[in-house]
Amino acid sequence: MTARPANRHQARLLRLLRDEGPSSRAQLGDRIDLSRSRLAVEVDRLLETGLVVADGLAASRGGRRSHNVRLAPGLRFLGVDIGATSIDVAVTNAELEVLGHLNHPMDVREGPVAVFEQALSMAAKLRSTGLAEGFDGAGIGVPGPVRFPEGVPVAPPIMPGWDGFPVREALSQELGCPVMVDNDVNLMAMGERHAGVARSVDDFLCVKIGTGIGCGIVVGGRVHRGATGSAGDIGHIQVEPDGRPCACGNHGCLEAHFGGAALARDAEDAARDGRSEELAARLAAAGHLTAVDVAAAAAAGDATSLALIREGGRRVGQVIAGLVSFFNPGLVVIGGGVTGLGHNLLASVRTQVYRQSLPLATGNLPIVLGELGQTAGVTGATRLISDHLFSPA
Amino acid sequence: MTARPANRHQARLLRLLRDEGPSSRAQLGDRIDLSRSRLAVEVDRLLETGLVVADGLAASRGGRRSHNVRLAPGLRFLGVDIGATSIDVAVTNAELEVLGHLNHPMDVREGPVAVFEQALSMAAKLRSTGLAEGFDGAGIGVPGPVRFPEGVPVAPPIMPGWDGFPVREALSQELGCPVMVDNDVNLMAMGERHAGVARSVDDFLCVKIGTGIGCGIVVGGRVHRGATGSAGDIGHIQVEPDGRPCACGNHGCLEAHFGGAALARDAEDAARDGRSEELAARLAAAGHLTAVDVAAAAAAGDATSLALIREGGRRVGQVIAGLVSFFNPGLVVIGGGVTGLGHNLLASVRTQVYRQSLPLATGNLPIVLGELGQTAGVTGATRLISDHLFSPA
Repeated sequence: MTARPANRHQARLLRLLRDEGPSSRAQLGDRIDLSRSRLAVEVDRLLETGLVVADGLAASRGGRRSHNVRLAPGLRFLGVDIGATSIDVAVTNAELEVLGHLNHPMDVREGPVAVFEQALSMAAKLRSTGLAEGFDGAGIGVPGPVRFPEGVPVAPPIMPGWDGFPVREALSQELGCPVMVDNDVNLMAMGERHAGVARSVDDFLCVKIGTGIGCGIVVGGRVHRGATGSAGDIGHIQVEPDGRPCACGNHGCLEAHFGGAALARDAEDAARDGRSEELAARLAAAGHLTAVDVAAAAAAGDATSLALIREGGRRVGQVIAGLVSFFNPGLVVIGGGVTGLGHNLLASVRTQVYRQSLPLATGNLPIVLGELGQTAGVTGATRLISDHLFSPA
Repeated sequence: MTARPANRHQARLLRLLRDEGPSSRAQLGDRIDLSRSRLAVEVDRLLETGLVVADGLAASRGGRRSHNVRLAPGLRFLGVDIGATSIDVAVTNAELEVLGHLNHPMDVREGPVAVFEQALSMAAKLRSTGLAEGFDGAGIGVPGPVRFPEGVPVAPPIMPGWDGFPVREALSQELGCPVMVDNDVNLMAMGERHAGVARSVDDFLCVKIGTGIGCGIVVGGRVHRGATGSAGDIGHIQVEPDGRPCACGNHGCLEAHFGGAALARDAEDAARDGRSEELAARLAAAGHLTAVDVAAAAAAGDATSLALIREGGRRVGQVIAGLVSFFNPGLVVIGGGVTGLGHNLLASVRTQVYRQSLPLATGNLPIVLGELGQTAGVTGATRLISDHLFSPA
């Protein structure tokens, strides 16, 4: 895809077709503030570029039947979501429907060269199945703050070796297509907004609880990235004045008390201390524990695991309560690997927020789990690159 | 002023003239994306409405000399800032320069009828000095959340009797001009952005420490009000898990530990407990203490007062630290009555934020006192109504 929309009307038309699928000219006319003749001109120009193709006659609305148009069916976007402990790669069509998706465990600390070698080989595998001949654009998420315009990670706390690595440039060269890079939590938020539980919500928070904890902030439908790209970094908000030491050098940070890493540590302690036979058996079998073990143990009736989940929910709820008072969102989405802890976690978060935030801010506030699971990040990634490509050049 | 701009170009021209003062047509042409002939047409139409008047020949830029235009010099806006314990009223010209300003102590709990009677008599007093014949629009700030589109306070915690009072409608009728209503903290933020320390900053937080504590959130140059108008209500974020009981029903809220009301209470306790002779003398003389007494006592070397200020700064800094990690602002402004505590307070806030927030978020982050003092709110109020009036009808 080399063509780009020539003006903001064309850009708007492309995004409408992406978000609402094949449409008649009449339907597009209802949604966009353009004269009929001007609309016809812009649609014709998009047809000439090949970005848009004719798609048969539309259903009659009375009078002359209108022609359907749609985004070119051969357009392919690549979404890559680098987590702390795994990589997700997906291919979508122009409507951002996931056509193929792979997940592979990988420690982000292996560094950008090894991680992208793995991601590129996953992308090649998806291509080789015939899903795509090539990619028209790629969005990449990384688990740390990003200098957004340049697409470069900045001082990422859990990503040694990544600081300043030119992700956008390097990947663009390897893939031969435009690339955009963002923080993984921002992409999860935009994924849930595009196709998940936050559809059509303009102001919301998306809290990702994975190995660490971060928050995507959406204001007026756009991601708020902050002055230096670190907005939403809530893992280091203090929850306990004289709490546990944190990797960041402070004490009592949220991440030191909860998140995938802290939960695994607490579960292993409980297994070794004899507080949980269930966890001890799992530790003996696997050599280590993760949030998945805690969820399974809790489901099997292990009181210690349930207490760990509730205590974690209380901690993260304590932080979310403050953010709800501050930001007064219309929706709070909880996503990330730890959402396997499910409704026990959610109940605990809700209890804390509804108890501690102002009633005015929580009156109509839904706190819900994300809908997209492992495809939230990759969907957000393709949304990011398509937003970029469907903008005036 | 009955005329309103007919389109967004005219609206933009009016705002440019408001923010940058009298300008030549050539200068306007540099700032606005319009053909020369279209610009001439729009300026001529504004001249016909009387909103804009000719203002002599501009300085030569080589070639034919351009004509200056400016906003009508007779335009007058009224700004009213209702605080918990006082009312500020000001008259500005169309450039939002304060021409006259009155302050009067008044307890907001006396209710809307008494408060607005007072505010209207202050406005009448300013009019009677010849500053204004009438008002072309008025902005009103109230110390609680506002249902913004309707201009109605909602469940304001410290404002019994105000819930649902139709401020916008009632004042508009009394004053005979358009009225807009917002939360006082939002108006302080917009005042500092228009003419104070946040000039030209698009993303910042403005923390107002008065009787209570609130925060104005500016994103992309616009106030973020939240889903129910309560965004920025940080006074009830918990700073101490088992802390002091708060009027809201919870324990350990920021406002229970700091702010004008908490500080006065603590100072009176210290005076009665014999911990501060300085405060005891002031209490004996005045019958009660305020933040002003604490500031004066600290300046006179009273260690207890200094400790109260530092402890308060630590508390509010603790909350701001979390907000900085979350929101990653480009600037934090501290304003409100308690800023009389000055650099001791600021130093304590800064220490806490720089220690506790992520280095990436604080690297280039200035934390400063507001510049406008008592006129910040009224300036923001006139900015609000002028933004409304200088929008397409």
